[in-house]
Amino acid sequence: MTYAAFSSEIARINDILCAVNLLTWDARVMMPPGGTDARGKQIATLVGLAREMATGDTLQRAIEDARLELSGVPRGDVRVLAVEQAAQSIAALARIPAALVGEAAELKTVAQAAWAKARAANDFAGFAPMLERSMDLQREIAASLGYTAHPYDALVSTYEPGMTWSRLQELYGELRRALSPLLAQAREARVRSEILDRAYPVEKQRAFSSLVSSRFGYDFDRGRLDDTVHPFEISFTRSDVRITGRFRETWLPGGLFAVWHEAGHGMYEQGISENFSRSVFTTDFINLYAVGGASFGTHESQSRLWENRVGRSRRFWELNFGELQKTFPDQLADVDAEEFFRVVNAARPGFIRVEADELTYDLHIMLRSEIEAGLIAGEIRVKDLPDLWREKMKQALGLDVPDDRLGVLQDVHWSSGMVGSFPTYTIGNIMSSQFFAAACREKAVASGLDTGDYSPLKTWLNTNVHQHGRSKSPNELLVDATGSDLSTAAYIADLTRKVEEMAS
Amino acid sequence: MTYAAFSSEIARINDILCAVNLLTWDARVMMPPGGTDARGKQIATLVGLAREMATGDTLQRAIEDARLELSGVPRGDVRVLAVEQAAQSIAALARIPAALVGEAAELKTVAQAAWAKARAANDFAGFAPMLERSMDLQREIAASLGYTAHPYDALVSTYEPGMTWSRLQELYGELRRALSPLLAQAREARVRSEILDRAYPVEKQRAFSSLVSSRFGYDFDRGRLDDTVHPFEISFTRSDVRITGRFRETWLPGGLFAVWHEAGHGMYEQGISENFSRSVFTTDFINLYAVGGASFGTHESQSRLWENRVGRSRRFWELNFGELQKTFPDQLADVDAEEFFRVVNAARPGFIRVEADELTYDLHIMLRSEIEAGLIAGEIRVKDLPDLWREKMKQALGLDVPDDRLGVLQDVHWSSGMVGSFPTYTIGNIMSSQFFAAACREKAVASGLDTGDYSPLKTWLNTNVHQHGRSKSPNELLVDATGSDLSTAAYIADLTRKVEEMAS
Repeated sequence: MTYAAFSSEIARINDILCAVNLLTWDARVMMPPGGTDARGKQIATLVGLAREMATGDTLQRAIEDARLELSGVPRGDVRVLAVEQAAQSIAALARIPAALVGEAAELKTVAQAAWAKARAANDFAGFAPMLERSMDLQREIAASLGYTAHPYDALVSTYEPGMTWSRLQELYGELRRALSPLLAQAREARVRSEILDRAYPVEKQRAFSSLVSSRFGYDFDRGRLDDTVHPFEISFTRSDVRITGRFRETWLPGGLFAVWHEAGHGMYEQGISENFSRSVFTTDFINLYAVGGASFGTHESQSRLWENRVGRSRRFWELNFGELQKTFPDQLADVDAEEFFRVVNAARPGFIRVEADELTYDLHIMLRSEIEAGLIAGEIRVKDLPDLWREKMKQALGLDVPDDRLGVLQDVHWSSGMVGSFPTYTIGNIMSSQFFAAACREKAVASGLDTGDYSPLKTWLNTNVHQHGRSKSPNELLVDATGSDLSTAAYIADLTRKVEEMAS
Repeated sequence: MTYAAFSSEIARINDILCAVNLLTWDARVMMPPGGTDARGKQIATLVGLAREMATGDTLQRAIEDARLELSGVPRGDVRVLAVEQAAQSIAALARIPAALVGEAAELKTVAQAAWAKARAANDFAGFAPMLERSMDLQREIAASLGYTAHPYDALVSTYEPGMTWSRLQELYGELRRALSPLLAQAREARVRSEILDRAYPVEKQRAFSSLVSSRFGYDFDRGRLDDTVHPFEISFTRSDVRITGRFRETWLPGGLFAVWHEAGHGMYEQGISENFSRSVFTTDFINLYAVGGASFGTHESQSRLWENRVGRSRRFWELNFGELQKTFPDQLADVDAEEFFRVVNAARPGFIRVEADELTYDLHIMLRSEIEAGLIAGEIRVKDLPDLWREKMKQALGLDVPDDRLGVLQDVHWSSGMVGSFPTYTIGNIMSSQFFAAACREKAVASGLDTGDYSPLKTWLNTNVHQHGRSKSPNELLVDATGSDLSTAAYIADLTRKVEEMAS
């Protein structure tokens, strides 16, 4: 019964991590303002306990015993996968000194507050010392984790196992070459962008986005949708996976694409096999993000797939605009499906990453990746960031950044110690097209998309992506599902087709 | 630094228990239906961990070291109180074999489900085996805890430290003698009870009850109000104390008295001193109820005080009916303050405890206490309960119970293994009058109640009751605050005055 002992210890740790996730969800969605301090302590205690148990003797012995017991069992067996995946996570965790983990966690709270203050006051200098300390700690973490070519590799790998800075630079190069002419062509299109800013009552936005999310396959019996400032998805096992949107009356994308994006993440978590739902770590241990999927990039591929490949497709709006118009008859009286399709796909260089369209989004990511790789390697100094940001934005999008709020201070990531996660957004975009193309090679999927039946696509994703949880590496998953390694070809093809559709 | 070690270990345990409370709140207020099973496991894991830590060597050593360190410190010092209170809780917990705790926890889930099914089907026989098992376990728990006179004492003491069956019988006797003529007199009053069943829009009920709760002193910056089937209060430290009501359009009491009742519980938790908010167990360990107060009875005294002593007083409605009428102008057009006061105080014997008025409520409690004391002593057999219930209801209230749904199957308590908690409702009623009378002896409190300024009363309760948390025994608290032991005199005086007001 040694595998059983392993399994029950992992289950206990997962229960604690799920409680951490609920404490986190509640803090962002429900908690009264007075609860902040106590909540921080509760989370810290549970995280500390989970880490103690994960690196403790009980689990170590259980892993060794389970390996012995399973020595004759084939590698693909779920039990073997579970044991090896846990062993890997723990080994990575064990390489980082506990004191360093603690210091990073403490700094996170202080630095996030400092960042929020600095952003409000457009005061980069006030935030710089925290950012320097944060980068120092991330360099130490990178050194503890170990790397061959570049310290950034160690950090990127915690979000995207196996990814390197050198490979990222190749991918970025391919994308940059493709995006530049596409963006030039797309910018010529003229659209009435004010259509998205008209007054759309929040309750109706919620109803419409929920309805479509259900049709996509997000299961509300195992989830719920709430309103937050920053949309997110979080799970407490596959049977309770919650999403949030950002419903604002005059910002329709929050009630449409943000919800479908999070529903895409949610379907991934809801689709993980029961085999992996309690017996494999469902939370990333180093960064403490609740990811039951193979990687951050893989997860993002699922959100982007539903948001962009499906939700921003011409066919989707041919099929669904009528219903949206019925929901908002006055607001959309002068708009038709084709115009709406164009409006939600308009490409316009802007300062803010989270508001970026498909053609410029990755350029924001590349800029950040280059800066953080340089910071971690010690080639870029914190004090030079505002100017460097301006320079790179001018280069990438031809824009003059007016102040640091619209520049280097816009993202929370660095203050949270999240260095190396930005690339996973672009990896997710790339993968989304690969998965989507492979799925569409199946007749049922393609004809479903054509008629508005999204269940064949969802079933394909369940089978080829979701169910495997973290039991495959992102690349194994991609190769098994699509027949090829990570490659920009499908993504560039999708973006090219979209630009052509917009031009026609 | 030995007290510090003790304090930090207790804080860790409390953090876990607070997480359990959040998992519980969420399960009852927010969780999608699919989450049930996983949630049960998460709670079981955290409870198990908290129990392991509470009975573990680390805490035991910390307690011994802290005792040595504090050996010269006076008994009233908060550190001494904290150490001794923890030692007591742990000793009680340690007396119950872990296997028994586990079995009771497991049975609870199964038995609650069996009870819900049996109640729906009016099938006592189907529930009887579970109830027998539940009573067996409670008898074993009583034996483990130990007692002098009666096994029921051991169970009652887990909710109300120091209370005995013999003392309860004295109190019950006094109350019965007083209630009987009062009830006879009160039943003669004729009121239009349909006033409470008119259509009162839920949102307005919520707004009015929130407004009054705020005026009473419930702090919404450290709390929130939601809607549930069964109203409750739960806390995750003093800085986050949530309450729920039962808002139904045609049941105004759910939007008034149920909310103020829970707000009374909430103010107790919000008022506990910072000294005790993280360094003393804030959750009852054996029954796992989140009680930061001295006992269940003391807690109930605070909810009853605001619900009945204040919220059902004539002066309260003289001052506040106008505002209620403004909130519901059509529904209350034909009602005045005096009639409303009479309607919400009308006494009518009924089958259901949770719908009972002040004059009959305690009779429901006495009936249950006598039955459970008899069950635990082995003097009453489970199979005889339905008939015994009928007999006792006829005796107590002159009612013929038509079926077990309106009889022995109405309460969830016994299926949950809560034997010995019913008496705390009556103890709470008794104490509420004692605290209220003592508070009103202060001029500021009395004149505040007369003018609608509730802050002097709340401040008195903060000072004399709330702040002490669990650092005093219920009787110490009562004597220090009111000058006397538990006594029915003030409660009987209040009920008598009410009946006279209704008759005049």
